[in-house]
Amino acid sequence: MRATAWAAAKNQDGRVFATTGPVLVVGMGLLGTSAALALRGAGIEVYLQDISPTALALARDIGAGEAYGPGAPDPALVIVATPPDVVAPVVVDALNRFANAVVTDVASVKQVVVDEVLAAPVDTSRYVGSHPMAGRERSGAAAADRDLFVGRPWVLVAHEHCDPAAVLTVRTLATDLGASVVEMAAGEHDRAVALVSHVPQLVASLLAARLADAPDSALELAGQGLRDTTRIAASNAQLWTNIICGNCEPVWEVLASLNVDLQALLDALRAGVDAGFEAQGLAGAINQVMSRGHEGVVRIPGKHGGPARRWATIEVLIPDSPGELGRLFSELGNIDVNIEDLTLDHSAHQQVGSARIQIDPARAHDAAAELLARGWRIVTEG
Amino acid sequence: MRATAWAAAKNQDGRVFATTGPVLVVGMGLLGTSAALALRGAGIEVYLQDISPTALALARDIGAGEAYGPGAPDPALVIVATPPDVVAPVVVDALNRFANAVVTDVASVKQVVVDEVLAAPVDTSRYVGSHPMAGRERSGAAAADRDLFVGRPWVLVAHEHCDPAAVLTVRTLATDLGASVVEMAAGEHDRAVALVSHVPQLVASLLAARLADAPDSALELAGQGLRDTTRIAASNAQLWTNIICGNCEPVWEVLASLNVDLQALLDALRAGVDAGFEAQGLAGAINQVMSRGHEGVVRIPGKHGGPARRWATIEVLIPDSPGELGRLFSELGNIDVNIEDLTLDHSAHQQVGSARIQIDPARAHDAAAELLARGWRIVTEG
Repeated sequence: MRATAWAAAKNQDGRVFATTGPVLVVGMGLLGTSAALALRGAGIEVYLQDISPTALALARDIGAGEAYGPGAPDPALVIVATPPDVVAPVVVDALNRFANAVVTDVASVKQVVVDEVLAAPVDTSRYVGSHPMAGRERSGAAAADRDLFVGRPWVLVAHEHCDPAAVLTVRTLATDLGASVVEMAAGEHDRAVALVSHVPQLVASLLAARLADAPDSALELAGQGLRDTTRIAASNAQLWTNIICGNCEPVWEVLASLNVDLQALLDALRAGVDAGFEAQGLAGAINQVMSRGHEGVVRIPGKHGGPARRWATIEVLIPDSPGELGRLFSELGNIDVNIEDLTLDHSAHQQVGSARIQIDPARAHDAAAELLARGWRIVTEG
Repeated sequence: MRATAWAAAKNQDGRVFATTGPVLVVGMGLLGTSAALALRGAGIEVYLQDISPTALALARDIGAGEAYGPGAPDPALVIVATPPDVVAPVVVDALNRFANAVVTDVASVKQVVVDEVLAAPVDTSRYVGSHPMAGRERSGAAAADRDLFVGRPWVLVAHEHCDPAAVLTVRTLATDLGASVVEMAAGEHDRAVALVSHVPQLVASLLAARLADAPDSALELAGQGLRDTTRIAASNAQLWTNIICGNCEPVWEVLASLNVDLQALLDALRAGVDAGFEAQGLAGAINQVMSRGHEGVVRIPGKHGGPARRWATIEVLIPDSPGELGRLFSELGNIDVNIEDLTLDHSAHQQVGSARIQIDPARAHDAAAELLARGWRIVTEG
């Protein structure tokens, strides 16, 4: 291994990078290629490896680094970004090949990987797990971007035998790539992602599957609620199958708990079918589902973290022609109102839509008055 | 009843109204008050009725019309906008009181209402059901807006004894209010809304309920997928309990079909817990859920109706300061690119977000190049 002095590099934006190379990235998918691009952009020496010569060539051609081969130096850091079901053997292989390298992986499940790596007869103190939460609906090197990790959580999963210097190396990598580091144990991570990512994915797919054989006339009535609840059902089936196979128990636990509530609801609805809408327990059971859902949804943190914050909503009608949204947001900028979140809403067959804008409640009244004065039609405010 | 000549009115925007008054609106909630405001805005004679004197006074004070009382003329049209569980008796009462009036209602369930109305000893040929799909998360007269129905589907539910002139009257009302008329039988309507609205609501609530007791550290990892799939869990529990009680059988049927798939998935996951991720049938079961979900989600119609259309997506990093979104959309307007849909995405603890913009695929490459030339950071394009 080369002696590498600490030497801060900067990427094209002038952001400081403290990671020292050479870095080897294994697996030229979306995450691996994006990380390689970001490191190369800061002038760090990056090498690439993939079992697919085509994927490797593509990553090299878009500037992610050089193919790793004879004569290349031993890496100081190895990032394993293969599909989750082959991550552990690739990590173990890297620990064996490069006796001084820190090795991390980016798989979205962690306990199965950590268990398999720790069971191997190798120096595992140099292995630290990662899960940068930056997956996209598109995958592959062609979708890569060096800014993919900016602003995303990056879960750092250390184990009890980790060398603190190795943990620091991976934390520095995550910070260099613009992510927010969150430290968790493997089991805690897997239960968390089952809850906030894997089960929502499966439930969205189970719900969207109802539409596969639905009459067109029913789909014509689809509104924003259906679109939102099913959007992620468009995600990559193969990748998700791989992820969920690696996290069976936490996913099963969350779904089993949902199943208990679903059975109670089905029983109540069945009583309603048999005995009419005043059936004993029917209204109570539906209200219970709605109320518990409300308790859950308000706990999702708002922008910038911290406790859930309620933004004020203004809904404005938007004529369907180029520049109208631009005009709206320019005017909001002119009156110094920052948009915290927004959704566009539109219906079938109509040449008009509406924008639901979430803003600081303290500015809502002024903002609505200013928009009205400028001729915008406000549908609701509150 | 007064003789009312056909006389087109115009509202403040110059939109032509062909509805002839007097109109009586019963129930000063969001829908009733919004309809009354729109009709008053076109100069049509509107009367109001509500069992709550406060709700009635509020609707009157915001300009929705006059309280109906002694000396008021018989209405030509009655719009029943009470909670769904009392709609039918109010419709029957209106048919009895006003022998020449056309009567419609705006309840989100239709079969129970039609059955109860048709069973009453009254001239039901003047009753035509409606379901304007324009509910909001907020309710009540204070949230009312005369543009609430603009661009929304309005389901017209005629029954076999309807007078064609009555159907025309209600269709004219829907069109005047800016909605898109869709004609359906009551049962077809109820099955459609169970599928695209009622079950998505219940499933979002069942999913969000998992978060009620979750550790904060798990919620910190929440991303856009969780936000989208659970957003509507914040809806009004009492209103939804009322709606779903009136549509038990279609809702039960859709949920029971989802339940079949859920049980198969739970069995497969349980096998994975017991036998590891290579358990027989595990990968196949997860892939089946994902694939069916994909088949369903692609059937949701895009903007302007018609078959689902795939827009090109550009994801752009947005610094978190006022005016940045405005600048982005102004620049898109300058290069004549229309935004079909968009979502803002952001993570906890970060002062940067990204906007996913959906645009005409034919313009995507140019638009991305123009944005890059203007200094925007594009995360993904495709």
